[in-house]
Amino acid sequence: MARRSDKLKLGTFVYTFGYNPAGWLHPGSDVNGANDFSHLHKVAALSEAAAFDFMFLADSPAAAVGDPDGLARMPTKMNRFEPLTLLSALAVMTKHLGLVATASTSYYEPYNLARIFASIDHLSGGRACWNVVTSDHDETGYNFNRRGLDPHALRYERGREFVDVVFGLWDSFEADALLLDRASGIYYDQARHHTLNHAGKHFQVRGPLNIARSPQGRPVIAQAGGSEAGIALAAETAEIVFSLASNIERSRNFYATLKSRMASFDRAPDDLKVMPGVVVNVGRTEADARAKVQFLLDKLHPDAGRVMLQEFLEADLRGVPLDAPFPMDRLPQEAKGSRALFDELVAFVKQGHTVGELIRLFAEKHTGNGITGTPAQVADFMEEWFESRAADGFILMFPTLPSALEDFVELVVPELRRRGLFREAYEGSTLRQNLGLPVPPNRYTKARLA
Amino acid sequence: MARRSDKLKLGTFVYTFGYNPAGWLHPGSDVNGANDFSHLHKVAALSEAAAFDFMFLADSPAAAVGDPDGLARMPTKMNRFEPLTLLSALAVMTKHLGLVATASTSYYEPYNLARIFASIDHLSGGRACWNVVTSDHDETGYNFNRRGLDPHALRYERGREFVDVVFGLWDSFEADALLLDRASGIYYDQARHHTLNHAGKHFQVRGPLNIARSPQGRPVIAQAGGSEAGIALAAETAEIVFSLASNIERSRNFYATLKSRMASFDRAPDDLKVMPGVVVNVGRTEADARAKVQFLLDKLHPDAGRVMLQEFLEADLRGVPLDAPFPMDRLPQEAKGSRALFDELVAFVKQGHTVGELIRLFAEKHTGNGITGTPAQVADFMEEWFESRAADGFILMFPTLPSALEDFVELVVPELRRRGLFREAYEGSTLRQNLGLPVPPNRYTKARLA
Repeated sequence: MARRSDKLKLGTFVYTFGYNPAGWLHPGSDVNGANDFSHLHKVAALSEAAAFDFMFLADSPAAAVGDPDGLARMPTKMNRFEPLTLLSALAVMTKHLGLVATASTSYYEPYNLARIFASIDHLSGGRACWNVVTSDHDETGYNFNRRGLDPHALRYERGREFVDVVFGLWDSFEADALLLDRASGIYYDQARHHTLNHAGKHFQVRGPLNIARSPQGRPVIAQAGGSEAGIALAAETAEIVFSLASNIERSRNFYATLKSRMASFDRAPDDLKVMPGVVVNVGRTEADARAKVQFLLDKLHPDAGRVMLQEFLEADLRGVPLDAPFPMDRLPQEAKGSRALFDELVAFVKQGHTVGELIRLFAEKHTGNGITGTPAQVADFMEEWFESRAADGFILMFPTLPSALEDFVELVVPELRRRGLFREAYEGSTLRQNLGLPVPPNRYTKARLA
Repeated sequence: MARRSDKLKLGTFVYTFGYNPAGWLHPGSDVNGANDFSHLHKVAALSEAAAFDFMFLADSPAAAVGDPDGLARMPTKMNRFEPLTLLSALAVMTKHLGLVATASTSYYEPYNLARIFASIDHLSGGRACWNVVTSDHDETGYNFNRRGLDPHALRYERGREFVDVVFGLWDSFEADALLLDRASGIYYDQARHHTLNHAGKHFQVRGPLNIARSPQGRPVIAQAGGSEAGIALAAETAEIVFSLASNIERSRNFYATLKSRMASFDRAPDDLKVMPGVVVNVGRTEADARAKVQFLLDKLHPDAGRVMLQEFLEADLRGVPLDAPFPMDRLPQEAKGSRALFDELVAFVKQGHTVGELIRLFAEKHTGNGITGTPAQVADFMEEWFESRAADGFILMFPTLPSALEDFVELVVPELRRRGLFREAYEGSTLRQNLGLPVPPNRYTKARLA
C-alpha cells in the first residue's frame, strides 16, 4: 500500500466535560466548565498549540427531558454555552484553530444563520465551519412550535433548500466588490453586488446578505448523517464528514462510496475529508489506559446509565428495578443507532440478563468504544485507518476535557509526527487552507467569467 | 431644583463608521472597520476606559435595497458584523463594559435567542443586554418569508409573547440550582429546575432552556419605540429606553409618562433608565465643532443624501433631477419619524425649493442634529436634561468612530466628572449593578418563598 502524500487531519470534539457522561466527575475535567469560558478557551488553546485542524462544538437546541433522576447526573445537555456565541468568543481568542459549530436547518432562519457564520468567518480571519444538521432528537421540536420532530424526508428537503439559500446569500458580494474608495466616495461596486431573490418551497429570501464575502470565500461545511439523504447532501456540499469509527471495513466502504458520488457534482475526492469520530483512551501502558476507562465506568451511576441506554433504545425504563429481567415489551423493533450494537444488546437481553446488567454492558460499550491503549497502539489504529482510506483524519472524542486531550497531545501527537502522519505546524492561515480545501467560486463571478 | 443623587448613564451607539452616513469618508473613522474586529474592539476599549455603561449595537437583518447609486455610497447597512457574534467576541475582550445588541422578535425563535443572550451573559460575567425590537423596515420581511412587514399590531402581539417566552426560559434554572457535587454525583437540584410548557398564540415552547441562570439573573432589557404599544411593553419589561433627544419638553413628558406607567407592573421608577440618543459634535471651540459638522456635510454626495431623505419620507426620488422642483405627488400624507421635522420639510418644499435643496436641508438637519459645541456647552446640555428629568443618561451617537468618541472622552468626560455628573470608575461588576437595576426574581423561587 503506497503511503499517502497528505497528512491526517485532527479535530477536538467538544462536549463540555468530555464525551463520557461521567466526565464531569473526573478530576481531569473542570466541574465549572459549562458556564466558564476559560475552560473552553483552554481546550481551544491546547488544540491550537498542537496544530489541530479544528475544534468541533456539538449541539442540540434542547435540554433532555423525561428522566429527572438520571438527567440531574448528566450535565452535558442540560447546561452548556450556546455554540455560535461560544465560537465567536473563541474566534478572537485564537489565531490558527478552525472553529466548527453545529446549527440546525430545522430551527433557524437561513438569513440569520448565513449572517452569523459569515460574521464568525470575518471575526476569525477565515476559520469558521458550519456543521449542518437537521436535528434528530424529538425533544428539539417541542422548543420550536412542533409536536416532536418533523419527518426525516421533510427535514432533509428543508435542509437541502436551507443550504442552497445560505450559499446564495454568501455570494451576495463578489470577492473584489469592496472598493472602499474615499476619493470617489464609492464603497462597493454595484456590478459586483447581487440580490438572491430566492423563492422556494420552504423559504422566500430576497437578500442581499448584509456582510461582505467571507475570508474563506465561504465558511467550510461539515456534516454527519449516514442516511441516503445525508450521503447525497454530503457528496454535493460537505467538506468535512463526521462519521462513525466502529468498523474499519464499513468505514472503507463508506469512504469509497461517498467520494465516488462527488464526481457528479464536479468535485474532486480530496475536496471532502472523511473524519470518523473516535473515543481515545490513551495511557503510558495498556493497563494505564484500561484503568482510565474503568475509573469512568465506576463513576457512572445506574440512573445516568439508564438515560444513555434509553436514548439508544428509545425505550422508557424508568421504574424498572435494576435486578429485574429486561421487560421485552419495551424493546424496539429497529435500531436507531448502530445495528451491530443493537443486535448484541438484544442477544444479551434474551439470555435473561437484568436491566442493571444491560445498563452496565451498554456503558462498557460506550466508555470503551474507540481505541484504548498505548501511544503506539493509538497511532497504529490511526495509521491503519488513514493509510487504507477508511479516514482522512479523526474527530477525537476525549472522554474527559481537558485531561484526555492533554494526554493525547503529550503522548500520541509526537508519535504521529515521528511517523510523518501529522503536521508540525499550520500550513496556512485559514481552515480551508489547513484542510487543503479549494475556495468555492462565487456564482456570479463564475458566470461572468464563463 | 434639587440635584439628583444618582449619576448619568452613558452608552456608545455603534454604527460601524459612526452615525453620520459620510462617516466612512472621514479620516477619523476606519475604512476597513466593517469587517475588522480590531476597529470595534477599539470602540469598546475606549468606551470601557472612560467607564461608560455600555456599547449599543444597532442592527437590521437586511441590507437596504432600491437605490444602488446611493447605497454604494452608504456602507453601514450594506456590510456589517452580525451583532450577536460581535457581542460574543467583545464579551471576552472586555471586563466591565455593558454589551447591548439589537435582535428582532419578528425574525428569531425565542428558544434560540434566549440561549444566545444567556450565553453572552455567561461569557461576559453578567454584562449582556438585549435591545428588543419588532423591526420596522419593510426590507427585513423579504428576507424572512414575508412580503414586507407584518402589521404593527401583529408585530407587537408577537413581540409581547416572545418576551414572555424568553423570560420564562431564563427562569429554567433557579439561582441556587447547580450543586456541582462530585461526591454525590448530582449536578443540579431537580426541585430547582423547571419546564416552561408555554403554549400561546404565536409560540409553543416546552423548555427547559439548556443553560444555567445567567449571572445577572437575566440579561438587561433595552427598548426603543414610542408608540402606545411600545410604551406599554417598555413600562412592563424595559430597563433601558432608547428615546429621541429632539425636544426637552417632550422628553420630560415622555420620561414622566413612562415612569408613571411602571407602578402598575410593580416596578419602581428607577428600575428603568430613559436614555435619549443624541448626536454629539464637540470641539475645543464652537467654530471647531461647527467645522466638524460642515466637513461631513460637504462629504455627503447627493445620491447618498437622497437615500436618507427617501427613507425618512418613504418616497422614491430616483430619477428626479436635483435642480427640479420637488414632485409634490410623491410626498406622503403622514410622517413616519419626527412630525416636527416632517412639517418643516413640507413647508420648505411648498416654498418651491428643488429636490437638491431639500436633500441638503435634510442632511443639515440630520448632521447637525443633537448638540454641537464646546465641552462646556455639551455638558450644559446633558446636565439640563439630566437634572430636569428629561433623561437618566444618553446614548451617544458619534458622527464618526472612533474619532468623535475619542474627542468626547478627552473633552467632555472630564467636564462631566468635574460637575459630579459622571462616575470616576465602575461601581459594580455587572451591567445591572452599574446601571443600578435590581436583579429580577426567578418566578419559581418567588412562588416558593411566597
